[in-house]
Amino acid sequence: MTTPPPTPDRPPRRRRAAPPATAAAPLPPLPADGQARAVIDAVLPQVDAGRFAVKRVVDEPLEVTAHVFTDGHDKVRARLCWRRAGEPAWRETEMQPQGNDVWTAACAPDAPGPWRYTVCAWVDHFDSWRAELLRRVDLADILLAARVGAELVQQAAGRAGGEDGARLASLADNLRSRAEAASRATIAEIESVSLEVEAIKQLALAEDLAELAGRYPDRRHACWYAGPDGLPLAVDRPRAAFSTWYEMFPRSAALEEGRHGTFRDVQARLPYVAAMGFDVLYLPPIHPIGRSRRKGPNNTLIAREGDVGSPWAIGAEEGGHKDVLPALGTLADFRDLVGAANALGIEIALDIAFQCAPDHPWVRQHPQWFRRRPDGSVQYAENPPKKYQDIYPFDFETEDWRALWAALKDVFDHWIAQGVRIFRVDNPHTKAFAFWEWVIAAIKAEHPDVLFLAEAFTRPKVMHRLAKLGFSQSYTYFTWRNSRHELMEYFTELAHGPGADYYRPNAWPNTPDILNEHLHHGPRSIFMARLVLAATLSASYGIYGPPYELLQGEPRERGSEEYLDSEKYQLRHWGELSLERADSIAGFIATVNRIRKEYPALQSNRSLRFFDTSNPYLVAYAKRDADGRNAVLTVVNIDATFTQTGWVQVDAGWLGVDGGGFVARDLLTGQCFDWRDGGNFVILVPSQMPAHVLAIERSDAA
Amino acid sequence: MTTPPPTPDRPPRRRRAAPPATAAAPLPPLPADGQARAVIDAVLPQVDAGRFAVKRVVDEPLEVTAHVFTDGHDKVRARLCWRRAGEPAWRETEMQPQGNDVWTAACAPDAPGPWRYTVCAWVDHFDSWRAELLRRVDLADILLAARVGAELVQQAAGRAGGEDGARLASLADNLRSRAEAASRATIAEIESVSLEVEAIKQLALAEDLAELAGRYPDRRHACWYAGPDGLPLAVDRPRAAFSTWYEMFPRSAALEEGRHGTFRDVQARLPYVAAMGFDVLYLPPIHPIGRSRRKGPNNTLIAREGDVGSPWAIGAEEGGHKDVLPALGTLADFRDLVGAANALGIEIALDIAFQCAPDHPWVRQHPQWFRRRPDGSVQYAENPPKKYQDIYPFDFETEDWRALWAALKDVFDHWIAQGVRIFRVDNPHTKAFAFWEWVIAAIKAEHPDVLFLAEAFTRPKVMHRLAKLGFSQSYTYFTWRNSRHELMEYFTELAHGPGADYYRPNAWPNTPDILNEHLHHGPRSIFMARLVLAATLSASYGIYGPPYELLQGEPRERGSEEYLDSEKYQLRHWGELSLERADSIAGFIATVNRIRKEYPALQSNRSLRFFDTSNPYLVAYAKRDADGRNAVLTVVNIDATFTQTGWVQVDAGWLGVDGGGFVARDLLTGQCFDWRDGGNFVILVPSQMPAHVLAIERSDAA
Repeated sequence: MTTPPPTPDRPPRRRRAAPPATAAAPLPPLPADGQARAVIDAVLPQVDAGRFAVKRVVDEPLEVTAHVFTDGHDKVRARLCWRRAGEPAWRETEMQPQGNDVWTAACAPDAPGPWRYTVCAWVDHFDSWRAELLRRVDLADILLAARVGAELVQQAAGRAGGEDGARLASLADNLRSRAEAASRATIAEIESVSLEVEAIKQLALAEDLAELAGRYPDRRHACWYAGPDGLPLAVDRPRAAFSTWYEMFPRSAALEEGRHGTFRDVQARLPYVAAMGFDVLYLPPIHPIGRSRRKGPNNTLIAREGDVGSPWAIGAEEGGHKDVLPALGTLADFRDLVGAANALGIEIALDIAFQCAPDHPWVRQHPQWFRRRPDGSVQYAENPPKKYQDIYPFDFETEDWRALWAALKDVFDHWIAQGVRIFRVDNPHTKAFAFWEWVIAAIKAEHPDVLFLAEAFTRPKVMHRLAKLGFSQSYTYFTWRNSRHELMEYFTELAHGPGADYYRPNAWPNTPDILNEHLHHGPRSIFMARLVLAATLSASYGIYGPPYELLQGEPRERGSEEYLDSEKYQLRHWGELSLERADSIAGFIATVNRIRKEYPALQSNRSLRFFDTSNPYLVAYAKRDADGRNAVLTVVNIDATFTQTGWVQVDAGWLGVDGGGFVARDLLTGQCFDWRDGGNFVILVPSQMPAHVLAIERSDAA
Repeated sequence: MTTPPPTPDRPPRRRRAAPPATAAAPLPPLPADGQARAVIDAVLPQVDAGRFAVKRVVDEPLEVTAHVFTDGHDKVRARLCWRRAGEPAWRETEMQPQGNDVWTAACAPDAPGPWRYTVCAWVDHFDSWRAELLRRVDLADILLAARVGAELVQQAAGRAGGEDGARLASLADNLRSRAEAASRATIAEIESVSLEVEAIKQLALAEDLAELAGRYPDRRHACWYAGPDGLPLAVDRPRAAFSTWYEMFPRSAALEEGRHGTFRDVQARLPYVAAMGFDVLYLPPIHPIGRSRRKGPNNTLIAREGDVGSPWAIGAEEGGHKDVLPALGTLADFRDLVGAANALGIEIALDIAFQCAPDHPWVRQHPQWFRRRPDGSVQYAENPPKKYQDIYPFDFETEDWRALWAALKDVFDHWIAQGVRIFRVDNPHTKAFAFWEWVIAAIKAEHPDVLFLAEAFTRPKVMHRLAKLGFSQSYTYFTWRNSRHELMEYFTELAHGPGADYYRPNAWPNTPDILNEHLHHGPRSIFMARLVLAATLSASYGIYGPPYELLQGEPRERGSEEYLDSEKYQLRHWGELSLERADSIAGFIATVNRIRKEYPALQSNRSLRFFDTSNPYLVAYAKRDADGRNAVLTVVNIDATFTQTGWVQVDAGWLGVDGGGFVARDLLTGQCFDWRDGGNFVILVPSQMPAHVLAIERSDAA
């Protein structure tokens, strides 16, 4: 979508305009190369014909199909071509015909950043000649064809040069001279000539000649799909596809009750987070918090003295989006935290919330970035009759948009300079879409390893658009998908629907904003079951802790998705955290995350397949790795309370264990079950363990 | 697909290249208008993102859907815009939201030629303001909002000007002054002010204000889908979608046996063709026929003295593609034929076969347009081991391609100058695809009423590509689709598959090249049944006559699809033709074609729906007109020999006759049947009438 020069406004036409008497349509130009005869159609994958990038991670295969053909009976060849943006030459691999004019090939880009890919095809005269020669029977035809072939081989020799060129030239000479000699024979000599012609045909059809000549095709009239620059491919580092997130509020990280937590307290928590197996630690905004219109505990309108306010009300006298709340420590402390986390294999993800508290310095410095009301006041956020007087949104329609965009990009750049490489973007769907497309591309051009998670819990088309625009990951509706039917439909769509090439789901059973009613006062088993679902259905998932592992399920009020005494508005005290605490499922989470790391099948969504069960409270599905082996089959009892039994209908062949029985080893409990193709009986007792996560193994290996 | 500057040839990389250390990706440019906030996505229909045109005929609705939204809570508006290529301004109509961010509108281009269409969307501040005001409750908020609204209405007044502008300006003044006055009231006056505020709110929300202001939106920051020129739409005259073809060999048109037929003989046949209801009369090539290597009757290799040869072996001493075979008459005779046909509502369609007999003048004049063999001879057509020495194909890889293309276009132009407006193109898939795209666009730019039928009986992807490139109609696989399952699958794909927007099928039960074995020695009933299928499944269909209506079904040999004593190689004598001949189904064909003209439902494929039957020899389907009414339900007994009975399961609501019973009136026989929603019993006796073509009528109208 682009913006053309403004069209004069005018009302919609009510009456049909008479067509102009002579609307001379422009004559089409001749193509640059009318001799190019190959046709390339239907290249897949592609997102909106290349308007947006297909996404892959480093070393993840990009499997490309295309329709390739030409007019008449000639043979075509096709290559998949790919390169990093800016590289001068394509990397190439031959595509293989699969019948019905469908060709395929795969590549695996080896570095993060913007890439391009395309298909190149050409009419191959050597292949055409060879295919015809195979079917020729008349002596004279074969001898003429041999002379045609000698010419084609001679041309390949010219393109090859060097040793290969010399070899091809010698083969061409041999073919030509023998064919010419044989064609001078008389009818009387037909018997002996027949044998020579057969020998010449064999020589011309030799496999090693075909292989050698095939390396030097004549591509003067080759065609490229989607123009000389092909289609866009966004390659991210692997964590874009496989990541395990833990969200926590730094200010509640103090071990002593009542003290404001600091970056150093967070640093002390890192070993606990690492022990649970998380590799991304996401912190809500760490900036100065506005004092004007500050909210009190449980989102009350009036804050009392000492109330800490919401971290999303960004900006105060001490600074704005590039500054640190003094109570948390210093920028140096933050950099220390980043370094300490990295040393444990954890990345710090920062929350980017582009909005201002009324006392944010920008409100004074850049009044033109905010909308004014007729009384001169700044327009606060509202969705009538709701008002959010503590938040000023940016006016993305400001005439000064270039400066605003630059300032917002500068916020990212600032935190990138502190070592941050992952950003969780707050409500991106309330900021201009064009801004995201630009800023993500601009940042990734300089820092291809930076990742962006879109926190947009909104309408489907909007969430998809944000993913297309460049967000590396997206939140999902998982929190509200609870029945078997809902889970099957939604995750099948995520894994196999049109978004599969650009929308990378990140599934969260809870967030500080969403305590789904399924978790309200829920037993331990429902927290375990929802975690297993998130962790095995989605290659990326996260939890908001410590409330999650500590089984916190009390809402602010009945029916609300808000936590009671939410950390969003006050400090909380969680005490000493460990994998062993009896009121925690931290140890269970550690087990699940260890399984995710050990089994590549769980690190992608591409292979997800659901299996039928005889009981709607049992959800069964499997994933397998890129080679179609090492499947992991998960069965979850989604009933929080009652034991559920039933039959799970599996496809042993799909699971990679053809024929007879196999062993399903439960990675959560260590138990082994003898299973077989077809129906298998399952019993899951929530109070003991609400799920099986089963490694599928051959019986002989058990 | 375009052709970039040649890339140096080199072998595919066998080893992975190390990624460049610093591949600095180019920084993305800022958009032209960063203040544009509307988003348009997923505009449908489109063919390959606008690489090819969607096709419609004049006055056929183009129904467009799009995803339209913006960031945050603001309201968007969207318009469908369309114009003839070259027109300076868009015609526009408001799109309507259908929920889930999907918007729709329709337009109906009113002239043939190339058109463009797009969707324009913008954030509408007036609509946003109004939607918020509806939900506002606080007095002060309402008064501030009224002042904001007054400003917006004042701006609309400026855009409107004239009478509307004056009216809007007065409304704005009124709103502003009342709001300002009310906001000066004191708290003590709150009761009376409350009433005034309510009145101001009602004033601001008045429907007529919304309607008037809505006509003058602020579109300075509007977005257009697919750039300022939108997507291509090819509009043809109605015959592109609904046409009834009759093919005949002029040289067999003489009434006297043994005499070579002439254009005048064809002219004498016109009333017969018109009486059968055909509106396109298609003639195989009418040019001089080569003498060198001429084929004899039944495609024998050696022609005897007096053998007439194949009309597709084009060119001899007398001339080539722009000349007329003297035995048929003169160019003036041909023009007379065109005129006489047009007077009867029939168009003459010419066969364009771009190939040359060895004695075609071009072989001598333009030797560079043909490929040479090493012995200096011209390469004839071959598909080893088959050889076609009487045909020289053009070499579309000739360096002189520009001159060749121009000469071929000149052939079309020549016949257009003689009054021809429809061309049936012989084997387009054996000529360069890029040529077709150019030549069709070039001809239609000057003559938007010219239609092209692609005679490509080849692989699916190739046939689709030709349709995308611009052919107005395409032959189909109908001839080889005989079982109920095959017919249902194939015609469902044609009507509702991805090609529905560009592939217009033309179904033929026979051609001079294809006498399907179902017709071999078939009884009268199978000729009738196959004709009904073609004529009611496909809005365009044709037959090759007189063999078809005269029930000719004798193949050259058992299992062959060639006719015995085919007119392709010799004269045939058919005697006096009329609708009444006992050995003919001409009268039946006239009935079927009359029904097609009377029932608009049969003039499009868009509504085709198959119904279940209890007997696989009964095929049942219906079409209805654009308003969803006036359905025609067809039931065909596809068993040539035996009476078939069974139940046809219909959906009365879909047929437009909700509730209770209805009358199915057979348009072939005049019989009426009382039918109802659900199952209805059918008996079809092939020897009497192998099909029902039923008009669906309300009982009360019967």
